[in-house]
Amino acid sequence: MTIAASAPIPTRLALHHKGLPFAVHPVAVSDKATIGFSGQNKVPILKHDGRVIADSWVIALYLEKEFPDRPSLFGGETGATLTHVFNVWTDRELVPALIPYLMREVLDCVNEADGAHLRGHIEGAMKKSLEELTAGREQAVLTFRRKLQPARKALEKTAFLGGAAPTYADYILFGLLQWARVTSSAKVLEDTDVIASWFDRVLGLYDGVGRKELSRAERMKETAA
Amino acid sequence: MTIAASAPIPTRLALHHKGLPFAVHPVAVSDKATIGFSGQNKVPILKHDGRVIADSWVIALYLEKEFPDRPSLFGGETGATLTHVFNVWTDRELVPALIPYLMREVLDCVNEADGAHLRGHIEGAMKKSLEELTAGREQAVLTFRRKLQPARKALEKTAFLGGAAPTYADYILFGLLQWARVTSSAKVLEDTDVIASWFDRVLGLYDGVGRKELSRAERMKETAA
Repeated sequence: MTIAASAPIPTRLALHHKGLPFAVHPVAVSDKATIGFSGQNKVPILKHDGRVIADSWVIALYLEKEFPDRPSLFGGETGATLTHVFNVWTDRELVPALIPYLMREVLDCVNEADGAHLRGHIEGAMKKSLEELTAGREQAVLTFRRKLQPARKALEKTAFLGGAAPTYADYILFGLLQWARVTSSAKVLEDTDVIASWFDRVLGLYDGVGRKELSRAERMKETAA
Repeated sequence: MTIAASAPIPTRLALHHKGLPFAVHPVAVSDKATIGFSGQNKVPILKHDGRVIADSWVIALYLEKEFPDRPSLFGGETGATLTHVFNVWTDRELVPALIPYLMREVLDCVNEADGAHLRGHIEGAMKKSLEELTAGREQAVLTFRRKLQPARKALEKTAFLGGAAPTYADYILFGLLQWARVTSSAKVLEDTDVIASWFDRVLGLYDGVGRKELSRAERMKETAA
């Protein structure tokens, strides 16, 4: 099983969750008509058994259906529907709320062609110039934290959004915060936030597959050394 | 089992879901320090087996725990956590989005003491005067419909938020839209919206317990006749 992706961590965690071996083939952002955190992305692409499946949500549904005897990604039918709700909510509410905070640093992380593509895409989607988005970044992170309140209240009661163990809902939210961690040195969550503790737990899953992706701060340290 | 409540429909549906007999004792809004759609309410109150349980979410957890052999309200552990997320999201995002649209008519539905209490409470919570809220009502309903998108995308795929059958997540969202139906003749959903079709399905559950609550339009017709 192989996946090609620019921001594939939820899909990779889903494959680990199912205990399925796979190989990753990265693609550059500008190779695609769209980008990995827009909610419109057709990245990642999964190849399995002669079939090609695009879109991380469709891949999660596919894995659940094809491998029903492996640990469930959704924890049942209600879990599957509410994970779908959670996925759309993350794409439509959380992602746009976080973009203004991270925008500048995200553009620093990609090559020139990708940068121009990304800038145009995001300015179009957000209907604001990069400069306007950047000007509002301190307010933006407060709004983003406030918008996380539904997940926060649940994580005050359980270790994971899946309950005692993680399910795909955890990987969805983790994917967004991991994107922030990898592309930005800005502080997205306060240290005392239960979501920060949860994020640390998810970083450690499957032999720390999340933690092995270096944060922006770690990469800058490596470059400096 | 008895419940005392001003807006108890999610709790009543939960009791029907569990197949438990109960009696309802209504209370007036101004009897309580808070109101039924604020997310801070301690209405309804469930009395069972010598215990008193307040707050609709706590009651749902209680019923699930006390009656594990009856049909599940959450469909498992992941479902329970994500229903909690859904509940907080509804209280924090959907309720405030809908209030400006319905405010005037809600105040018409209650007695004078309740009206003064409600007006003060809502103006405080929304940090706007009733007049300002009312002025923005046409825009408010468009925002509200847009905010429903996560539930809408899921309901394009399944009959209920619980999957093929309803669970407590359905009763949560139904409670909000039923409040709109009972207190207002304003059109909250477009007829072609899959959420409108879903709402109609929930109205029909348990011998139409939802439909037996008259809409504002039906009540006005009765008064006129």
